[in-house]
Amino acid sequence: MAGREPRNPLREGMSDDRAPDAGALVIFGASGDLARRKLLPALYNLYLERWLPGAFAIVGVARRPMGDAEFASTMHAAVAEHSRRSLDATLWEELASRMSYIATDFEDPQGYARLRMHLEQLDRERGTGGNRLYYLATPPSAFPAIVLRLGEAGLHRAGPGGRWVRIVVEKPVGRDLASARELNETINRYFPERSVFRIDHYLGKETVQNLMVFRFANAIFEPLWNRQYVDHVQITVAESLGVEGRGRYYEEAGATRDMVQNHMFQLLCLTAMEPPVSLAADAIRDEKVKVLHALRPPEAARVAEDSVRAQYVAGVVGGRRVPGYREEPAVAADSRTETYVALRVFLDNWRWAGTPFYLRSGKRMPKRVSEVALQFRDVPHRLFGTGGRRPVPNTLAVRIQPDEGITLRFDAKVPGPQPRIQPVTMEFRYGTSFGQEPPEAYERLLLDAWLGDATLFIRRDEVEASWAFVDQLFAAWEALGPEAPLAEYPAGSWGPSEADVMLARDGRQWRRP
Amino acid sequence: MAGREPRNPLREGMSDDRAPDAGALVIFGASGDLARRKLLPALYNLYLERWLPGAFAIVGVARRPMGDAEFASTMHAAVAEHSRRSLDATLWEELASRMSYIATDFEDPQGYARLRMHLEQLDRERGTGGNRLYYLATPPSAFPAIVLRLGEAGLHRAGPGGRWVRIVVEKPVGRDLASARELNETINRYFPERSVFRIDHYLGKETVQNLMVFRFANAIFEPLWNRQYVDHVQITVAESLGVEGRGRYYEEAGATRDMVQNHMFQLLCLTAMEPPVSLAADAIRDEKVKVLHALRPPEAARVAEDSVRAQYVAGVVGGRRVPGYREEPAVAADSRTETYVALRVFLDNWRWAGTPFYLRSGKRMPKRVSEVALQFRDVPHRLFGTGGRRPVPNTLAVRIQPDEGITLRFDAKVPGPQPRIQPVTMEFRYGTSFGQEPPEAYERLLLDAWLGDATLFIRRDEVEASWAFVDQLFAAWEALGPEAPLAEYPAGSWGPSEADVMLARDGRQWRRP
Repeated sequence: MAGREPRNPLREGMSDDRAPDAGALVIFGASGDLARRKLLPALYNLYLERWLPGAFAIVGVARRPMGDAEFASTMHAAVAEHSRRSLDATLWEELASRMSYIATDFEDPQGYARLRMHLEQLDRERGTGGNRLYYLATPPSAFPAIVLRLGEAGLHRAGPGGRWVRIVVEKPVGRDLASARELNETINRYFPERSVFRIDHYLGKETVQNLMVFRFANAIFEPLWNRQYVDHVQITVAESLGVEGRGRYYEEAGATRDMVQNHMFQLLCLTAMEPPVSLAADAIRDEKVKVLHALRPPEAARVAEDSVRAQYVAGVVGGRRVPGYREEPAVAADSRTETYVALRVFLDNWRWAGTPFYLRSGKRMPKRVSEVALQFRDVPHRLFGTGGRRPVPNTLAVRIQPDEGITLRFDAKVPGPQPRIQPVTMEFRYGTSFGQEPPEAYERLLLDAWLGDATLFIRRDEVEASWAFVDQLFAAWEALGPEAPLAEYPAGSWGPSEADVMLARDGRQWRRP
Repeated sequence: MAGREPRNPLREGMSDDRAPDAGALVIFGASGDLARRKLLPALYNLYLERWLPGAFAIVGVARRPMGDAEFASTMHAAVAEHSRRSLDATLWEELASRMSYIATDFEDPQGYARLRMHLEQLDRERGTGGNRLYYLATPPSAFPAIVLRLGEAGLHRAGPGGRWVRIVVEKPVGRDLASARELNETINRYFPERSVFRIDHYLGKETVQNLMVFRFANAIFEPLWNRQYVDHVQITVAESLGVEGRGRYYEEAGATRDMVQNHMFQLLCLTAMEPPVSLAADAIRDEKVKVLHALRPPEAARVAEDSVRAQYVAGVVGGRRVPGYREEPAVAADSRTETYVALRVFLDNWRWAGTPFYLRSGKRMPKRVSEVALQFRDVPHRLFGTGGRRPVPNTLAVRIQPDEGITLRFDAKVPGPQPRIQPVTMEFRYGTSFGQEPPEAYERLLLDAWLGDATLFIRRDEVEASWAFVDQLFAAWEALGPEAPLAEYPAGSWGPSEADVMLARDGRQWRRP
């Protein structure tokens, strides 16, 4: 355990203080994008804020041949570029002195033997105590090999004196139910479910966690949070970017696999779940998976009404002309991969029966924005005039990014002698209220994995339940035949008109977030 | 009817446009404070914004001898000083040309005969159409005489061709139930209830009207607005001023008669009432009076627990030393008049049974503030830690004055890795949201009286029901005997500690508004 005193003011005097055990973090894919842009900057910030244990080591593992010093200096450049804080030279030196690197092919058992010896040496020399945190930051194709080689090398067990071994798995976990199951089974062969930490970085975002706080730390929202008062829910995850050179990956994924199955379903779960009995990881995950089980399965007969798939064509985003999806590198000229998807889903349970949840996600939208918006039913009896304006129902919008916050739209009296009303908004902004920027998602997630707190990680049944839905959705789409409609939208627009029609049929419309 | 086109942008194209009939406004007590500070500035603003009819006249009536020109120039000075807008010379001349003045003792029948001739002359020469709006802006002692002389002179009937006569009665309407009844009977002798417009200027305030809009134009508040979710309600009307030379008046009134019986009970009614069937004046007033009828009557056996009376002693307000109440001019050295009152009242009805409403009003408080605050019950099951802090329940505060607006206090997640919560607020500010200052209460009330809209005026049964409560309260206090406790509080404090104890017995505390 740590010998250093915490100097983080957030931690001082806290009864619920949490301190991570000594241990070694092994990052597979340490020379990759994720490690450089997210993991090392997160580690630097955790170290700076004294969240890391007193004794720890960071071991990079990747194919690229380099020595410890080169690894550290590569990471120095990465952290300098991507950290939200400026780099302190002394602190960096302290952190760099804990770093080492092992070059190996992920398939090569020799590499794992070397890793094992190295970790045991760290236990002796650095006091890492036999605890191991493996982080799979590689492309998903490497996941099975790494897990199997770790197991074969006995690295799925703690080192001498160690108490735990954990494995963090980056997304995507599979590309359908079968492949997800296969991967999960491979992982569980050596790592029991309680040791597996599947990442969805949306869960690391403060505002996503705040969804639960907002609902369950306050007495006044939960009574309204059901079919009786909520007309419908809209969940939007919009990106202004296109495929950005990742055409090959995206052709295989598409918006549904890339966004809906993971991030959007997580937002759906946190929005729709019942109050958990406690904040224990499984108490919360039990409730989330119940939401996924309540999802009405897609059917061929209804899927044309309940979904819209679309691709962006050339257009203008942020004043810049951009090509259409089929013109992107590594994208087929006749690609049918959706870059936009809109879904109407129902939760067949007591709380939400009959209340539609509209989900949409797209690339090349006018801006990057993620939000959950509850639109409430209209007043049961209209007393006040709107001056001819269409009445605007109450809406509660939780902005996930950017400008994290909560907005409540309600009607107020227009000043003056007429009893007329007009919508106004009440706002809470995370940044201005707390006077600090929220920490990066990866800081929270890395720390939680180190602490063994699985609350913000995806349990196997969650992953598989969401893939089950997505599989059924694709099956329903396929049943429409190869000529089934694939809508178009200009880059820089809010999606295809077909998506507007989908809501208009219900007498509703999309928000402009 | 008006020949002029409205040029107020608020009025253009409105289907619910309301235009006042031609008529004469007769202000009794036209040389007094209220006329100078409130009524004439309000009339100027109404004229400026073209709310007044095309043909109208303003007739001042008071004891002080002056001619029409002197009256107009006196009013010019008053409006220049008190109007919220700078004076336009041309507009003022137009308005001044409609003014005239009659000097008379309010008891003198001759004065009323002259008034009658003058009004008929205005009908002929100024097209005021026989409609009469009498405004009693005199001390209340003059009300009965004015009403009786008007009636005896036949002025309770419209002039030739006129359609209506109305009478606006300033507060106070009586000083107890018997005197209020007597005055109401005198008024009703000549003026039927539908022609009587009793002023409570709080109802002219935009934010007070907004209480109803807030509740009934929005679907999301009303479900929470009851005993099931509201722990208790606090209504505060605090003044920083002392008695300001009005010691003689205040000795007879006290905080209960001066504030509770009228303004605070109006706020109570608007906060607690059921949704009205329509915005018709009597639909709303029917609901308000039901609240007053639901008030649990004060009883001697409970009054010591349910109320605190106090007087301010010398202290400091706004950095300035001020004398105690008993040291004020015209105040008895052994005065027992309360300058502060705090009440715990219950509404014995289906919606509010068991939910206390705490009312407090005082002079020489740290600041001038009026607000209604609903404190909600705590969450039924506490999931999140507060870091040792006492949990802060959700509160919705409607600020009546100053800084009109609405604040919602709720819990949000403290940024960082702990599942800790902290109260934050969402705010709606009237001024910033609508980009204009709300109109003065008297503008709205004068216009409504001219339009014959009694919604924002107090009906006879409302006045009498609130006096009935106040009478019972004083009777209960008297039953405690002449030595019953009268608490003290230093000027510049938030009232006596006895008031804190009253809430502490219930496990609650006063807000610091």
